[in-house]
Amino acid sequence: MFGLMQHHPLLISSLLVHAERHHGQQEVVSRRIEGDIHRTTYRQLAARARQLAKAMAALGVGDGERVATLAWNGYRHLELYYAVSGMGAVLHTLNPRLHPDQVVWIADHAEDQVLCFDLTFLPLVEAVAARLKTVKHFVLMADRSHLPASSQIPNLRCYEDLVDAQDDAYTWPVFDEERASSLCYTSGTTGNPKGVLYSHRSTVLHAFGAALPDALNCSSRDVILPVVPMFHVNAWSLPYVACMTGAKMVFPGAGLDGKSLHELFEAEGVTVSAGVPTVWQGLLAYVEANGLRFSTMKRTIIGGSACPPAMIRAFQATYGVHVLHAWGMTEMSPLGTVCSFRNKHLAMTEAERLALQAKQGQAIYGVDMKIIDGNGAELPWGGEVSGELLVKGPWIVDQYFKGEGGQPLIAGWFPTGDVALIDADGYMQITDRAKDVIKSGGEWIGSIDLENIAMAHPGVAMAACIAAHHPKWDERPLLVVMKKPGATVTREELLAFYEGKIAKWWLPDDVVFVDAIPLGATGKMQKNKLREQFKGYTLPTA
Amino acid sequence: MFGLMQHHPLLISSLLVHAERHHGQQEVVSRRIEGDIHRTTYRQLAARARQLAKAMAALGVGDGERVATLAWNGYRHLELYYAVSGMGAVLHTLNPRLHPDQVVWIADHAEDQVLCFDLTFLPLVEAVAARLKTVKHFVLMADRSHLPASSQIPNLRCYEDLVDAQDDAYTWPVFDEERASSLCYTSGTTGNPKGVLYSHRSTVLHAFGAALPDALNCSSRDVILPVVPMFHVNAWSLPYVACMTGAKMVFPGAGLDGKSLHELFEAEGVTVSAGVPTVWQGLLAYVEANGLRFSTMKRTIIGGSACPPAMIRAFQATYGVHVLHAWGMTEMSPLGTVCSFRNKHLAMTEAERLALQAKQGQAIYGVDMKIIDGNGAELPWGGEVSGELLVKGPWIVDQYFKGEGGQPLIAGWFPTGDVALIDADGYMQITDRAKDVIKSGGEWIGSIDLENIAMAHPGVAMAACIAAHHPKWDERPLLVVMKKPGATVTREELLAFYEGKIAKWWLPDDVVFVDAIPLGATGKMQKNKLREQFKGYTLPTA
Repeated sequence: MFGLMQHHPLLISSLLVHAERHHGQQEVVSRRIEGDIHRTTYRQLAARARQLAKAMAALGVGDGERVATLAWNGYRHLELYYAVSGMGAVLHTLNPRLHPDQVVWIADHAEDQVLCFDLTFLPLVEAVAARLKTVKHFVLMADRSHLPASSQIPNLRCYEDLVDAQDDAYTWPVFDEERASSLCYTSGTTGNPKGVLYSHRSTVLHAFGAALPDALNCSSRDVILPVVPMFHVNAWSLPYVACMTGAKMVFPGAGLDGKSLHELFEAEGVTVSAGVPTVWQGLLAYVEANGLRFSTMKRTIIGGSACPPAMIRAFQATYGVHVLHAWGMTEMSPLGTVCSFRNKHLAMTEAERLALQAKQGQAIYGVDMKIIDGNGAELPWGGEVSGELLVKGPWIVDQYFKGEGGQPLIAGWFPTGDVALIDADGYMQITDRAKDVIKSGGEWIGSIDLENIAMAHPGVAMAACIAAHHPKWDERPLLVVMKKPGATVTREELLAFYEGKIAKWWLPDDVVFVDAIPLGATGKMQKNKLREQFKGYTLPTA
Repeated sequence: MFGLMQHHPLLISSLLVHAERHHGQQEVVSRRIEGDIHRTTYRQLAARARQLAKAMAALGVGDGERVATLAWNGYRHLELYYAVSGMGAVLHTLNPRLHPDQVVWIADHAEDQVLCFDLTFLPLVEAVAARLKTVKHFVLMADRSHLPASSQIPNLRCYEDLVDAQDDAYTWPVFDEERASSLCYTSGTTGNPKGVLYSHRSTVLHAFGAALPDALNCSSRDVILPVVPMFHVNAWSLPYVACMTGAKMVFPGAGLDGKSLHELFEAEGVTVSAGVPTVWQGLLAYVEANGLRFSTMKRTIIGGSACPPAMIRAFQATYGVHVLHAWGMTEMSPLGTVCSFRNKHLAMTEAERLALQAKQGQAIYGVDMKIIDGNGAELPWGGEVSGELLVKGPWIVDQYFKGEGGQPLIAGWFPTGDVALIDADGYMQITDRAKDVIKSGGEWIGSIDLENIAMAHPGVAMAACIAAHHPKWDERPLLVVMKKPGATVTREELLAFYEGKIAKWWLPDDVVFVDAIPLGATGKMQKNKLREQFKGYTLPTA
């Protein structure tokens, strides 16, 4: 027997329709590539998204075809999010920080039909346009005055002209919620990038989960500034959550330096932001150096890599900005866990809270997780035993685009490639990426713990801990450190800094200082590059 | 092209599995009919729900068959919620406050196979058992020591014995999320009651919407005490929201008087509650009379009928408990709107906030609404024009059980029978039930406004405003008032109290005092009975 409730598929267009009808006067503010601050409302944005959907149809974009973007966070990118998915095509967000060869490989693999790009990326697109096999239309996301007089790009089109050529009389089509809505490639360190093909259903369900009070806790009282790029897992779904909840949105464009971000936070009354630790490091350094405060910021979501406790402390104790330590993956839309407090935690001391916040937190309803040992057996929670983390749920990948990489699931569970502990309350803590674990004499040493301690030292800007070859123990930890400008910390000081903080056998065997630690296209430390660099390194203990 | 995300149907069992796995140690506390306070956890409750599902299967309950309850809010009722829906049968919550004839009519119409009931309702079940055509098993929700030595009820079974006879080795079946999960009849004032048949999908989506920060804002930091009965639209979905978010649950059982409720609020650290205005009136009177406070309560959700502003003021100004004025219907699972604030409202004065809170608020994502005139044309928002309120969304009824009442929708929209205004921001305010509107000389007078003003008078306990016949104007307002004990307010004082608060032509033509205003089975004023009572009333203005 079936229920007798109304049938409405969960479509991305319904989020925009909700924002337009119920929060039509709410603002969307963007720092544009053109240099100025642009202001619009959900009502105006929804009308332009309808015009854009008609424009894309006029360009010949059909059901399920891919429209790619190379763009910063801004209102035009948001229009593309809704227009392309809403009309039944697939939004493919390309990561402009990738090497041009990778951009070409991914766009070809995705068979992108249209490529929309910000002014910033005109040189990149000019360099690769001739090599892209499937792109029929190149669209510069600007008005006519910003179009170059001449260009290498064949048949270059102007975004504003395309929009202006259409009226907004358009009704969003209704279709199966399982249809593909958007596509994002993982920048794997081995093998070719693999595409995750989200559905309308997975996107809307994920937005529900993400907006919950124990997750990102977004409401119509919020002013959301996503620092995390819209080309990186849909900016952690904030563009969807904002329409679902009617929050004001603020987009930083290309201005991701501390000064530009802080100005925008203050000018627009931002209450919540989100990004990877490396971005926040730049912001905190700027704020600290200039003696500034955050006058409206209430909380910030930090994910993408483990957040060093020192950063959590700085945000909370010095600036009164609550940190939500989160964890997820491109394959998870991306949110899996958030470290929000339970009622039992409210009476904790500040130190106890900080210790809890080093964990990535509790599973959002919709996500289940477990840890397994090397034989695939489920490990208990609450012990000291870490294992490989597996997840399942309606916004987690089933398989990659075009079947790349075969069937990734293990009996219905997606193996994350992370190694984690889960405590008795279900709070998960990533101890390492499986490939970054240091295997010393058959035992595992988690590199993240060692990095967090080093990064709590006042002289350290960034630290990576990698496995170095050892004749007796097979692998031993080598700490790679980038100092803060002007700091004078030594190897011996750093090793002494670990005393009493970890088991003795976890102590790094050596410390090396470098000018820079390589970061990947999504702001994560590239330890595979460091391992390559220190491949033949001889430890003093060897 | 379809997305490539995992397929997991939205099943009610997944809420309990989440609570068990991720909030297993969270408490569920119940004041039992037996008189004591009972404590359990989600882990224990989930195990017992599995035992119960096996017990129901052993009784012969098959897919889609109805299992009825006549029960207060308590952990056994919660076990039934999850066991019955989870196994693929349909939970039918009967309202014990209905007349026994109606209970029989509804149980027969629903074709209930099993009837589970609290000790309180043993006399009721004994009185009706012989007349129930389809019920094969009667289950007393208690242990063996509470079973009567002899009973009129054929083959009376003991809930605890049924549970104890099974182990908890049971895996929740996976099936189509559109399947029916639960059934609740509306207690319409005309015609036969009509059943709303919820699906697993509608229930889980509604729980997502209900938990959002702008709706009930529930998290794992909350301790939720639903005063609204579990036999009334699934206690506004709080039993589902609690498992989704891992909140502690507290159930008041039959103790709905002010003293019992206040004791439980304080003893268990309740942070959020929910109920109809008439229940809160009793609680506030008790707290006021005894000079008590609420030491942990943060907010209360008030719905079911329009909440008088005087009650909102009392909760907020005197007790520091924030009021969330909400609106919904049995046909809407039930939530449609909640009056939460937006960022633009945060700078308002207390008086401005109170004025806003008289409205039932903004639509939750998932619900769309519009107002129409007598010809079915959509009316603008932001004007002074009220119209009949229509709604649509995935947790709103499509048609009633067994097709009763025909096809209720108007071009996909459900007509609520409420008359409402919607302001420019999308905040909706019910001005009346369509059938309660007073039609004076072709113009409409909303009875709720007139009642709210009367109820702000310190001498008034409850007030209803109904249409009385008038030879010239057709209908004119008659105010029916129940005084507070010992109050001495007069007709003239009350009429003077309206001065400056409404348009002059809205002033009631007369005031009558009564000992009691009749309340329906869900705590709403029964104005149809008052209209009956004052059918031949001659107004002094006639």
